[in-house]
Amino acid sequence: MNILFIMYDQLRFDYLSCAGHPHLQTPNFDKVAAMGVRFTNAYVQSPVCGGSRMCYYTGRYASSHGAQWNGFPLRVGEHTMGDHLRKAGMDSWLIGKTHMRADAEGMERLGLSADSVIGARQAECGFDTWIRDDGLWGYGPDGFYDEKRSPYNEYLKGKGYPSENPWADFANAGIDDAGDMASGWIFKNADKAANVREEDSETPWLTTKTIEFIDEKKAEGTAPWMAHVSFIKPHWPYIVPAPYHNMFGENHVPAPTRHEVEREDPQPVFGAYMQNKIATAFQQDEVRKKVIPAYMGLIKQCDDQLGRLLDHLEATDQMKDTMIVLTSDHGDYLGDHWLGEKDLFHEQSVKVPMIIYDPRATADPARGTTCDALVESIDLAPTFVEAAGGKVAGHILEGRSLSPWLRGETPDWREYAISEYDYSATPQAVRLGIEPRDARLFMVFNGRYKLMHAEGGLRPMLFDLQTDPEEFFDLAKSDTHKAEIDRLYDNLFTWARRMSQRVTKSEDDIKAMRGRSMRRGILPFLADGTEVPEELTALYYGKAQADYTSD
Amino acid sequence: MNILFIMYDQLRFDYLSCAGHPHLQTPNFDKVAAMGVRFTNAYVQSPVCGGSRMCYYTGRYASSHGAQWNGFPLRVGEHTMGDHLRKAGMDSWLIGKTHMRADAEGMERLGLSADSVIGARQAECGFDTWIRDDGLWGYGPDGFYDEKRSPYNEYLKGKGYPSENPWADFANAGIDDAGDMASGWIFKNADKAANVREEDSETPWLTTKTIEFIDEKKAEGTAPWMAHVSFIKPHWPYIVPAPYHNMFGENHVPAPTRHEVEREDPQPVFGAYMQNKIATAFQQDEVRKKVIPAYMGLIKQCDDQLGRLLDHLEATDQMKDTMIVLTSDHGDYLGDHWLGEKDLFHEQSVKVPMIIYDPRATADPARGTTCDALVESIDLAPTFVEAAGGKVAGHILEGRSLSPWLRGETPDWREYAISEYDYSATPQAVRLGIEPRDARLFMVFNGRYKLMHAEGGLRPMLFDLQTDPEEFFDLAKSDTHKAEIDRLYDNLFTWARRMSQRVTKSEDDIKAMRGRSMRRGILPFLADGTEVPEELTALYYGKAQADYTSD
Repeated sequence: MNILFIMYDQLRFDYLSCAGHPHLQTPNFDKVAAMGVRFTNAYVQSPVCGGSRMCYYTGRYASSHGAQWNGFPLRVGEHTMGDHLRKAGMDSWLIGKTHMRADAEGMERLGLSADSVIGARQAECGFDTWIRDDGLWGYGPDGFYDEKRSPYNEYLKGKGYPSENPWADFANAGIDDAGDMASGWIFKNADKAANVREEDSETPWLTTKTIEFIDEKKAEGTAPWMAHVSFIKPHWPYIVPAPYHNMFGENHVPAPTRHEVEREDPQPVFGAYMQNKIATAFQQDEVRKKVIPAYMGLIKQCDDQLGRLLDHLEATDQMKDTMIVLTSDHGDYLGDHWLGEKDLFHEQSVKVPMIIYDPRATADPARGTTCDALVESIDLAPTFVEAAGGKVAGHILEGRSLSPWLRGETPDWREYAISEYDYSATPQAVRLGIEPRDARLFMVFNGRYKLMHAEGGLRPMLFDLQTDPEEFFDLAKSDTHKAEIDRLYDNLFTWARRMSQRVTKSEDDIKAMRGRSMRRGILPFLADGTEVPEELTALYYGKAQADYTSD
Repeated sequence: MNILFIMYDQLRFDYLSCAGHPHLQTPNFDKVAAMGVRFTNAYVQSPVCGGSRMCYYTGRYASSHGAQWNGFPLRVGEHTMGDHLRKAGMDSWLIGKTHMRADAEGMERLGLSADSVIGARQAECGFDTWIRDDGLWGYGPDGFYDEKRSPYNEYLKGKGYPSENPWADFANAGIDDAGDMASGWIFKNADKAANVREEDSETPWLTTKTIEFIDEKKAEGTAPWMAHVSFIKPHWPYIVPAPYHNMFGENHVPAPTRHEVEREDPQPVFGAYMQNKIATAFQQDEVRKKVIPAYMGLIKQCDDQLGRLLDHLEATDQMKDTMIVLTSDHGDYLGDHWLGEKDLFHEQSVKVPMIIYDPRATADPARGTTCDALVESIDLAPTFVEAAGGKVAGHILEGRSLSPWLRGETPDWREYAISEYDYSATPQAVRLGIEPRDARLFMVFNGRYKLMHAEGGLRPMLFDLQTDPEEFFDLAKSDTHKAEIDRLYDNLFTWARRMSQRVTKSEDDIKAMRGRSMRRGILPFLADGTEVPEELTALYYGKAQADYTSD
């Protein structure tokens, strides 16, 4: 069995028709859901690209692997999905985005070159790279945001788009009425068609690369593979080529999920985020009316390209031995809760789509069902290891395999989900005067109550999703829910004490160590020697060494 | 300035005359204390050889580096004292024991050979190896406890001691009345003289190696160095050569610090330890009467050899530019609290001697003083980095530099010390039926109250060292001290949430990142473009690209 682990960037859990979106039809997502299980309570371990992805790729919490935010390198030697899968005989490939920053200093210290196979895997999150393109080719006076080579930009140049950065100037820009380039960075341009042929835009381009990969691997007939197909879209810049640019309009834009009460004495971090530039932009109706239709168009394009991929699998008879996983690294506020982008722990940001099709007959009982268990993004890595026939290294991987759910079983399961957010590098930390080490947030959600804890002496937030599913009323402002808050803090405490770094000894290794030292001659407990098991006595005081003297 | 970082293994804090021992005179320890500062509340981060040492060598808590017990490998890539010091221009050398187990699997995964300089440092805790000898050359039916080559055993063989393992058969064994080898593993033999010439025994041998090192480095005139001189003694086997074997006798053995109340419904882990073989041995008066005089003899020999080293430094005019640190990796119960060895958090086990002589004039105000601040063993690494003139990497090193105390200042300081213990590989975990991941203990000590928390649903322990300095009365058995227990649990919770793995980004790096992405063309917040600072506008919408079309 192969695994297609498909990630969309910044795809909200509820912008799919199978998740109940009233206007957006995503028949191909729905088709996979109908063949598999849709997890309706899947949470990422950090609602930001880099941090979230490192959790997916390591199967570990953000504070366990330490690469907690965009551009924070993943420390050299950290185990990744690729390490675990290769041990189980499955290759691990990357097609698209990871947002991985290599630990260049650590690699240099260990003498690892990114040119070597080992070094390249360290530099690429443990994946072998089919193609890597992180899809953010911004350029400014300090240079490129991302200094790697962009295969996508090279592709566009090869197709004749005349620019040093056609990603910015064509694929993510339209043309204004005067005929000038109208950047997709600017929200007022979001309703324009991106100035790129649809088949040359990012999602079709990566889909083509994926199909090429599948075909080549099939032709090679090599080991089973897991391919991480990782699309940049529907992530900003919010602009999409025709015909998707005008499929949706103002009448498809829902009212924002927000309430005046949220702006009354908000928890300080929430308050600071409500004042940032993307939030104030999304607080404007004009912005939402322009951007949300473009966001929907981008998703519609993703769905169509997913259809292309499914068709190809069917045409090549590979649906029967390909596990398909559809998910995202985080959501998008789109103006809900007075916010834009992601970062905090409201459902719009921290909950993601999670649809898994398992082709095996064991999964037949669960096809087309939904599962509302508290799933964490770190559960995928152990799920894949099990699918590859491997043994889950529970001393390293902190997630739990979803395999029982895929078979329609009801295993004992976690009672709360955890997410973390490190905002140390953001303007919000500056605004609040918070030192980098204190600019950290934790979420504990037990299926009903959701606590946000903030370091640095700031007060927490609490929502009751049963009575307040829209998360407007911060119950931590009063004493009424002290017992619930205490209970969630107890959960956080238990979690914080977890065993996360004993990565060089498995539970089985440790059990095998027990009591072995005596059989290697370490006997620090002998009063008179009679305590030594008979089998060992000859070694310690049966030898005739009378003839040895020291002087 | 050079640094001599001298560690004795299993040396109790109170078995020195400067610490008030009534019978044991240690004039050379006292001399260093008179020249420097003696820290009277120094705690190790894990009271077991391997775990404690990895904390010293990394400057990080046991659950941060993960090598929590003997034989648990230190993960490849973990930063060590040597890494930090080399960055500051100081070499880092090992002379003696580390109890380091290399992460062979991790090194292989990264293609690192222990033969290379980089690989050797990874395999040796970041030290360059002058000589390594862990001093535990037990041998049994499953082979050697330690499979490395023993330079000390080779030395003894070269001196003509006729055995494959003269460490066991001579240096750590006496001769009984029948003329047979009498193993030092057996406590009843502890009063015999070890069957080795005194100058060939372990402590003088390593002292000689250290003097050779100092002389060679002086001759070379190379970079300043930190040398970790790490003696195996007074660690068991408890046996010492003449004349030390009969310097002390029964009349020098104090009554055990223990109380019947400790055996009444003890906390389960404490209870299990009281039943293990070393504890039941030390519960016998005969054992204490034999062993403690030998333990004192071993310490007396350490003191004499320290004198030899000090004399050599003086004779070669190096006292003026050598920092000297005297400490231990943990203590020894010696029958106190009904226990033997170490492992738990009573003062006898978790508190260590910590004496620092700083030759610089800045340290003059503090010479000959004591300091009762809560010091942790992880404080040494940052102290050394500062002494080397480096900048302390506070995102990696979790300890705090002791430099202000050495200058006689009174800095703001931690309010509690933490220690941890992982007993997952021990018979006590088997006895209690505890899974490896739950076999973990935590100590929080705030200078008065000491809490022991046990995972696995076991109850805590609490001692009030002000009213009960001998730690007999477990206050967690009743509700009387709930407020104190809650307060210490709050401390533990704060500590458990600490930032410990964000090792690839310093606080300064993060501050420098703030707000940089716009200057690299990432602009995800523009409603209409007017938000762009004027200096940047030309880049995003001033370009005349009207003549570019995509179709």
